[in-house]
Amino acid sequence: MRRVVSELTNKLDIGKISGLLDIPEHSIKGALKRKTLQYVYGKQDIFRFDKPVSSVEGGTALFLEPFEIVRGFPKISRTLMLYPALIKHFSSCDKVAVEEKMNGYNVRVALIGDKLVALTRGGFICPYTTEKANDLIVRDFFYDHPELVLCGEMVGPDSPYVPKTFYNIESLDFFVFDVREKNSGNPVPVMERRKLMDEYGIKSVRLFGEFGVRKAHDAITDIIKGFGDTLREGVVIKDPKMILPPVKYTSSLSNCADLKYAFEFYNDFGRDFFFGRVCREAFQSVEWDENEESALKRCQELGKSILLPMISTIKKKKNGERIAENVQLRVKSLETIKEFEDYLRLLGIDAVFEQPEKIRNEFLVRIRKIHQSTNDKTETILGGQMWS
Amino acid sequence: MRRVVSELTNKLDIGKISGLLDIPEHSIKGALKRKTLQYVYGKQDIFRFDKPVSSVEGGTALFLEPFEIVRGFPKISRTLMLYPALIKHFSSCDKVAVEEKMNGYNVRVALIGDKLVALTRGGFICPYTTEKANDLIVRDFFYDHPELVLCGEMVGPDSPYVPKTFYNIESLDFFVFDVREKNSGNPVPVMERRKLMDEYGIKSVRLFGEFGVRKAHDAITDIIKGFGDTLREGVVIKDPKMILPPVKYTSSLSNCADLKYAFEFYNDFGRDFFFGRVCREAFQSVEWDENEESALKRCQELGKSILLPMISTIKKKKNGERIAENVQLRVKSLETIKEFEDYLRLLGIDAVFEQPEKIRNEFLVRIRKIHQSTNDKTETILGGQMWS
Repeated sequence: MRRVVSELTNKLDIGKISGLLDIPEHSIKGALKRKTLQYVYGKQDIFRFDKPVSSVEGGTALFLEPFEIVRGFPKISRTLMLYPALIKHFSSCDKVAVEEKMNGYNVRVALIGDKLVALTRGGFICPYTTEKANDLIVRDFFYDHPELVLCGEMVGPDSPYVPKTFYNIESLDFFVFDVREKNSGNPVPVMERRKLMDEYGIKSVRLFGEFGVRKAHDAITDIIKGFGDTLREGVVIKDPKMILPPVKYTSSLSNCADLKYAFEFYNDFGRDFFFGRVCREAFQSVEWDENEESALKRCQELGKSILLPMISTIKKKKNGERIAENVQLRVKSLETIKEFEDYLRLLGIDAVFEQPEKIRNEFLVRIRKIHQSTNDKTETILGGQMWS
Repeated sequence: MRRVVSELTNKLDIGKISGLLDIPEHSIKGALKRKTLQYVYGKQDIFRFDKPVSSVEGGTALFLEPFEIVRGFPKISRTLMLYPALIKHFSSCDKVAVEEKMNGYNVRVALIGDKLVALTRGGFICPYTTEKANDLIVRDFFYDHPELVLCGEMVGPDSPYVPKTFYNIESLDFFVFDVREKNSGNPVPVMERRKLMDEYGIKSVRLFGEFGVRKAHDAITDIIKGFGDTLREGVVIKDPKMILPPVKYTSSLSNCADLKYAFEFYNDFGRDFFFGRVCREAFQSVEWDENEESALKRCQELGKSILLPMISTIKKKKNGERIAENVQLRVKSLETIKEFEDYLRLLGIDAVFEQPEKIRNEFLVRIRKIHQSTNDKTETILGGQMWS
């Protein structure tokens, strides 16, 4: 295998990549050496950037045959204090466009040769998402615009990563929030992009409207409060021309939902998920000038989101259950299941696949993702091991 | 200064230290090279182990004149699940001794030459604690037992590290929980140690009793529940012979009090304090088989301990205040204040000392410890900076 990878590495035209990505050749060679730019095993030969390298985003993918680059999706900054952040960040715009931030997983879809390929945020080709993208997205768009990449959210219950039922989507659906050029990553302006999607019958995330920069704060607070208890995640606030980078802002309920998930598998995700989300709650409470009752309610919800899922996990383990996350896929081809299984193995995710269940012209496959660290830690503590 | 340190390093008799600590010479040389064994600037020449090196505890101190070793205080393991931990850990004992874990700071007091010296957990000589130790502890003990070290908790409101008022101590007091040999760190058995302290009129931490290993769990649960809302921290459970290492177990109220402190200065301490304490809450809830009402109460208290202090900090900063922790010292000698100021500077702690206030034969000095990271982060977020 080693030989094969080095042969493929030799096939990379460093000069050409350097020109297209606009970074020096030695940066690319260094990244290859450090495995920051790494070959990914799979049906299709790609290299991916595991982390950012100078101006190139992590998740950027290089396809070998045919040669194509798909730039990584840029990280979106988050504001914890809406008003001052909008004023500071968007001072050079008249207005901002506010779109929904949906709760699913970030996918880039591009035409590579004659095939649609779906890349995850990290720059892996997900075989399952690729099957779904081929089903969901009208090819015409790519025939007319082969140089463009659709960036969007894959949302719905049949999601192996972020299964959510509250959008009333039957299986999985794709909502575009960005259209970018393959090589440069340059984005299409907001309204132009939405119009383009409409023309091809491709869904966009919801647009809440365009607002003057000094008024956007009130409008967004109303939007977020208007989500009520629907679990909708938040908004992304954009320069309509897409010159300034966008900013995200999320609801308390979605913060708490994330915490519930993280603390069900506390030893796998608790540490990483916790701190930022707690800070969001505290700053939002101050910005909204909450009274004591509202603040106490927020404390209660925060505490419940952290402790109750952990307590439930410990009790399950005490009863001899294995701690697992249940997800499901729905595919037309059983071959996709096989490929997805290999893909999870490649990512180091431990998962148990149940027998496919035929439903109409599709197969439903239930998967139990095993979070080993939480299983092990809970078991040893229950067995009398010390914490540290 | 560099030259002086290297001269002092040359003075270390590596062969002798190697023999007394029972570790190879090359380990000591390696530790010196890596600065794991480091010279500490101060009135008295000492070297300290910044981290454990093979069997030698972090915080172990080497005095040069006269040459003395004071072993570091060993880390005490914590149980989250009392019953199985006691059974597993103390299976070779008939019974365990249960002593109070007080909420102050861990200090080792030893006679070095003709002076009593107080070392912090990390192996620094704290000039303030040294003055207090000299005041509080009868010298006779050390004249009779110069080879022994008193390990105890410094507790009370006049504490620069952990000021607590709830013990009804006027200034600062010292409670012994261990007596150990200087070179070996070997401990004196529990009842023998307590008797020895009584003989010299030195205070010990409270002994709750000795309990059969299989019954200790109920007794300790009663003790912890009996703390009620007094903020007492917890217990340390010991093999009466001090052959097996002790185990600690703490109350929910003390966990929450720690969290309140940590989240008042969230960007300095929040991350480190959080995870372990949340886990303690979850396991205790399961071990105590709590009903829904008790579990919800626990969630509320947890949420309040995290969010309310953060909210208060953000509001203070919004009002232009500087985020600081107020502590106070009470000394007989103003020279001690000067030395303590130098000492905090050495540790990299930013502190503002107010003018000493004469009270009877002592000086009260108020100190504002500035937690810069929390100040900076809060200020930038309020100013519209993105979270990340």
